[in-house]
Amino acid sequence: MPGAHGSLGRWLPLSTRLGIKRIVILGATGSIGTQTLDVVRRLPERLRVVGLSAFRSETLLREQAAEFGVLSSSLAWGDEADLVSLATMPEADIVVVSVAGAVGIRATLAALEAGKDVALATKEVLVAAGELITAAAKCSGAKILPIDSEHSAIFQCLLGQKPEHVAKLWLTASGGPFRAWSAERMAQATLADALHHPTWPTMGRKITVDSATLMNKALEMIEARWLFDVPIERVGVVVHPQSVVHSLVELIDGSVLAQLGLPDMRGPIECALLYPDRADLGIPKFDILAQKTPLAFEAPDEARFPALALARRAAEVGGTLPAVMNAANEAAVGFFLDEKIAFPAIVDLTARVMDAHTVQPSPTLEQIMLADGWARGAALRLRISP
Amino acid sequence: MPGAHGSLGRWLPLSTRLGIKRIVILGATGSIGTQTLDVVRRLPERLRVVGLSAFRSETLLREQAAEFGVLSSSLAWGDEADLVSLATMPEADIVVVSVAGAVGIRATLAALEAGKDVALATKEVLVAAGELITAAAKCSGAKILPIDSEHSAIFQCLLGQKPEHVAKLWLTASGGPFRAWSAERMAQATLADALHHPTWPTMGRKITVDSATLMNKALEMIEARWLFDVPIERVGVVVHPQSVVHSLVELIDGSVLAQLGLPDMRGPIECALLYPDRADLGIPKFDILAQKTPLAFEAPDEARFPALALARRAAEVGGTLPAVMNAANEAAVGFFLDEKIAFPAIVDLTARVMDAHTVQPSPTLEQIMLADGWARGAALRLRISP
Repeated sequence: MPGAHGSLGRWLPLSTRLGIKRIVILGATGSIGTQTLDVVRRLPERLRVVGLSAFRSETLLREQAAEFGVLSSSLAWGDEADLVSLATMPEADIVVVSVAGAVGIRATLAALEAGKDVALATKEVLVAAGELITAAAKCSGAKILPIDSEHSAIFQCLLGQKPEHVAKLWLTASGGPFRAWSAERMAQATLADALHHPTWPTMGRKITVDSATLMNKALEMIEARWLFDVPIERVGVVVHPQSVVHSLVELIDGSVLAQLGLPDMRGPIECALLYPDRADLGIPKFDILAQKTPLAFEAPDEARFPALALARRAAEVGGTLPAVMNAANEAAVGFFLDEKIAFPAIVDLTARVMDAHTVQPSPTLEQIMLADGWARGAALRLRISP
Repeated sequence: MPGAHGSLGRWLPLSTRLGIKRIVILGATGSIGTQTLDVVRRLPERLRVVGLSAFRSETLLREQAAEFGVLSSSLAWGDEADLVSLATMPEADIVVVSVAGAVGIRATLAALEAGKDVALATKEVLVAAGELITAAAKCSGAKILPIDSEHSAIFQCLLGQKPEHVAKLWLTASGGPFRAWSAERMAQATLADALHHPTWPTMGRKITVDSATLMNKALEMIEARWLFDVPIERVGVVVHPQSVVHSLVELIDGSVLAQLGLPDMRGPIECALLYPDRADLGIPKFDILAQKTPLAFEAPDEARFPALALARRAAEVGGTLPAVMNAANEAAVGFFLDEKIAFPAIVDLTARVMDAHTVQPSPTLEQIMLADGWARGAALRLRISP
């Protein structure tokens, strides 16, 4: 995590030293955005909203602006240039990036270049542009703080540990609805089957399908690789159906640290926004004495869930390949949601798009965007004429 | 943990800065002592033994001295004055205290007063004399590093966390052999039943009986109270029969950190001796993918295991009461091992000795020793004429 373990005092802007962080939320009306506002609502002495953006929901955004006292000049609607303006507002200490998809990349880069910390929920940003994003953070000294239960868990476990003592990061995966299904049965899985997530019921449709293919975990592997600066072979996945242990860190001496909690994204949001501080949100907490279901762990079945191997390949090859994997998967999930392809075809189509791609090493943002667009086109082409 | 989170560089003696720590082991021929020597054997570039003591096993101690190149002038046999001399040797950086019982208190105090870090395995030291011991550490800046799977776990989870963010420490307990027994059945438990520990098979007889009564956990609650400077009501116990999670830390925002590992004391020993460093000992490591048995958690049954309430009472009252609890329990376990009293009478007798004690607040070491002796006499008296 660039800069996360160093001495912080001298980097903190005045408002932070006074105990108030001023935040901009890109994607305020989505699931993470509204939960972020609930965290702000619960910590009025610590957090102040100074900018909000939404993609479509103008009414809700106006209501949010009214409730949190955000000027209408500090609202934006999805346009990339407006997002960049919000992300670099002089008043902002930290920018929450929770927009859907690759539109978040440019705003994240701009925020980091301007020295703003970024609380990052949009997976695509690091998956597609991890090299550019982490270089920008390193250069300005700004921090990337994960808003994601798994990466927040790893971030918390790593506090106080030296990088050279870290042997492996273990992302936990619920295993999705098909954890215990045979390959034959998975081949027949319906849309309704795939949309039934066992432990995080309120997620969107795309991410729920990604949980069923384990592509969500594949994307998280690449995210972790960048966020914590470790090679992909030191990022493992362990299936943990109860979603209580949010992830683990294995140290060189065999000691394993884990973070546990309720499946409530307000925890990771609070942890990212207040870092290096913490506060009680007054919401239900995990009670170890009340954990009636034992916590199970198992190795993922790589044959039934080939997305994990794709992530390793994408991260090892690097360049534009992770962006292509992400975009092809997004297109393929779209086809599945439209009931145009079968469940196993999601990852299969993604793999074929990756096979067809000519990788550009160390790409610029423009090359990443081009590769993203190419992958969506290739996915459509390969679906129609395999 | 006094001093454990501060800047360390300037306190480290030269040998430590060069990467070698010179250690004295008090109780070298016991279980922790021999495992400590195995850790040294595996890390010859990092650890050097400069002093050894044993209570009886002269032959083994001479063999150990020969293997590790310890001068015969740096060997001692149980005498308290000799232990103090070893504990304050100018050559020593860290003193491992793993002697049986209260004889370790004076040597621990002397080591800390001389500015030596102490790797502490002997529970009695902090239980009986926590106030004196932690005051000595605070005064000299020396550290007390736990050699105990539970406290090592908490110590590791606390690294990087601010003290004001800690809500509760959760010690895990295997639950012992009687976890699932009824009170009626426990009343009939034989010595053989009590000596059958489910997960740590190589422990001594006294500590195995303490695991059956949960008095071992009761002592650890008081230890944790001193080691981590928290009031006893913020030290909880959770039964976890698999002994994989060695303990947990609950933070004010509901995030819970846990440390997991194999039940092998060489892990906590390595962690204490090398702190703030770590190293791979080349011994089997915990493999989360191979964890076939799910990890279960449950509240301890305070009615069947009244030792936990005794610990809370002893810690709240303070003074000489924890020393009395410890000594009375040691006497009572002796009676049980000699098959003179029934299993439930161990804790019952301990409670009655505590009831009969006139507590001395803020005792000196001498007053603690007197209370210890009084409690052993009282236990015998109360056993014979209840």
